Amino acid sequence: MNNSLSQALKQIKPLDKEAMEAAQARQDELTKPRGSLGRLEELSIKVAGIKGKIVRGFEHKAIVTMAADHGVVSEGVALYPQEVTRQMVFNFLSGGAAINVLARFIGARVVVVDMGVIGGFKPHPNLVCKMIDFGTKDMTKGSAMTRQQALDAIEAGIEVVEAEIAKGLDIVGTGDMGIGNTTASSAICAAITHESVEKVTGRGEGIDDEQLAHKAKVIEKALKLNKPDHRDPVDVLSKVGGFEIGGLAGVMLGAAAHRVPVVIDGFISGAAALIATELAPGLKDYLIAAHLSAESGHRILLEYLGLSPLLSLEMRLGEGTGAALGIAIVEAAVKSLAEMATFGEAGVSKEKH
Amino acid sequence: MNNSLSQALKQIKPLDKEAMEAAQARQDELTKPRGSLGRLEELSIKVAGIKGKIVRGFEHKAIVTMAADHGVVSEGVALYPQEVTRQMVFNFLSGGAAINVLARFIGARVVVVDMGVIGGFKPHPNLVCKMIDFGTKDMTKGSAMTRQQALDAIEAGIEVVEAEIAKGLDIVGTGDMGIGNTTASSAICAAITHESVEKVTGRGEGIDDEQLAHKAKVIEKALKLNKPDHRDPVDVLSKVGGFEIGGLAGVMLGAAAHRVPVVIDGFISGAAALIATELAPGLKDYLIAAHLSAESGHRILLEYLGLSPLLSLEMRLGEGTGAALGIAIVEAAVKSLAEMATFGEAGVSKEKH
Repeated sequence: MNNSLSQALKQIKPLDKEAMEAAQARQDELTKPRGSLGRLEELSIKVAGIKGKIVRGFEHKAIVTMAADHGVVSEGVALYPQEVTRQMVFNFLSGGAAINVLARFIGARVVVVDMGVIGGFKPHPNLVCKMIDFGTKDMTKGSAMTRQQALDAIEAGIEVVEAEIAKGLDIVGTGDMGIGNTTASSAICAAITHESVEKVTGRGEGIDDEQLAHKAKVIEKALKLNKPDHRDPVDVLSKVGGFEIGGLAGVMLGAAAHRVPVVIDGFISGAAALIATELAPGLKDYLIAAHLSAESGHRILLEYLGLSPLLSLEMRLGEGTGAALGIAIVEAAVKSLAEMATFGEAGVSKEKH
Repeated sequence: MNNSLSQALKQIKPLDKEAMEAAQARQDELTKPRGSLGRLEELSIKVAGIKGKIVRGFEHKAIVTMAADHGVVSEGVALYPQEVTRQMVFNFLSGGAAINVLARFIGARVVVVDMGVIGGFKPHPNLVCKMIDFGTKDMTKGSAMTRQQALDAIEAGIEVVEAEIAKGLDIVGTGDMGIGNTTASSAICAAITHESVEKVTGRGEGIDDEQLAHKAKVIEKALKLNKPDHRDPVDVLSKVGGFEIGGLAGVMLGAAAHRVPVVIDGFISGAAALIATELAPGLKDYLIAAHLSAESGHRILLEYLGLSPLLSLEMRLGEGTGAALGIAIVEAAVKSLAEMATFGEAGVSKEKH
């Protein structure tokens, strides 16, 4: 196993129980009935456990949006032409995509990463180049990538988030772009959760019934040919995954190693979380599921991860759009804990006993 | 019927279909698969219909938090002492309550209104005084208020929101404070929706099973004694309602009359929405349900209103806390529509046909 990965795996520590107890104790003294802020209270306590203290907000926020292409697109699984991956990277760089709008809204920067987009890019000040290859291979013909490429993708993700941490990063959201990447994610989900391909395969950008049946067949074929070993997440990633999925797994691991909370987006980020948590089960405590995507496998995946989504807005765009809204909810939670007055401070009577 | 109320009822007009069609057409040109922003798309179209145009965001946001006391508290339905209503108003005024924190977070002002708190208040620059009486009467002994007081409360709410509109108001959230007001709201909910008292009665600030059974009995008794006429919402409000509930109904009507979207909070705001929409069915189009509260009658009430909540975070605090988070989601929706690039602008290919 490579160096930064084994380092990250060693660095992921349990949550700070003392900080969580202090956060819970403060929640119970704030001017509101106990528990009445519901999941906001739970989030504020989790973040205290991650950070090791009660924090006042998130000064530095980022969404890491990773892009790559998928060889399996040649099997006709996608509704949009493959060049849209590359075109959308330009859209991210010029600030016109949904993730740009939502990140601006929540005060986060967008870190755009080329993990392996066909055609590549000239150097650009706002594009991080971690290109592994010009897209994966067609998983119905063989392994999507080599084992070394899978490890390189994860390592690249760790490097990306560590570079962001060096600039200042209090919370991170994950996002993806890659035509065909719901196919790769469904394959990962089936391989790791042991659910049927049918159940974990969804409509992606909006394919019809016939296309959906075809997509499921393509995934079945890839799984049968490649036989990913569910006990070995790097094997699963290499057989049926994508470079951006490996990269996002790395982002999650690297962030948790440095006690930065990770708000995961939808189905593709969820597939990355499956890979990453199989590598480091302790990572789960650092993950917050932003939303329940309209993509059908997402619920199965979140249940497997033991994460309950914050939002359910029928979104299915990816890019980190759900994560951006999720970060806003987490920040609201953290600020409630930090800024509200206690019963004593406000001179408010407590409940009768 | 009083003057500003009849005026508001006349002024509530259907949504602007042309603006909604323009918003839908723009959504379909933005760089994302059609429909992939889910409920954000729906919200952006609804707001365009309310405003009569596509807007770029909400410069002026307010949460109107109305407080009043309830005579029914003498029946032992509440967990907190009645003076907490007044104490919490001071907490709102000094900025230490949950609603202050969440309103600051979303960039909204909090408009604190005394609709009838026992003990009253000295004049305060940030407190709007619309006091109808020092709390309602005990609804198990007779009508909670007179019909004239019910009308006055609604009118007061219209005046409050019209004063805020004069200062600048692009979207408004509703909030409440009043020990005992889940009892009043459950009674209103039972009277208007015809659901059983048992189903619409919840635990408020956290009462136990025995207290819950007692609370339901109190409501049954009040409904049996007062026989609120479900065809006459002002009668329902006067028999079993509260001054802050009437006031919030007025805020909703006044806002809709001026084409300002209204994000309603939890169960108490929902009860106010029941009164208000029975007076003006067209109001429904102007309402956005922020969240599904943990209070058990809330789901029934929202279904009756035909509104689907944006969030479900197990919150049950009131004050407008859910509405504040809801406004953030609506603003994210509106900004996505306004700020995203179109396929043409970004040079991104559309889906294959």
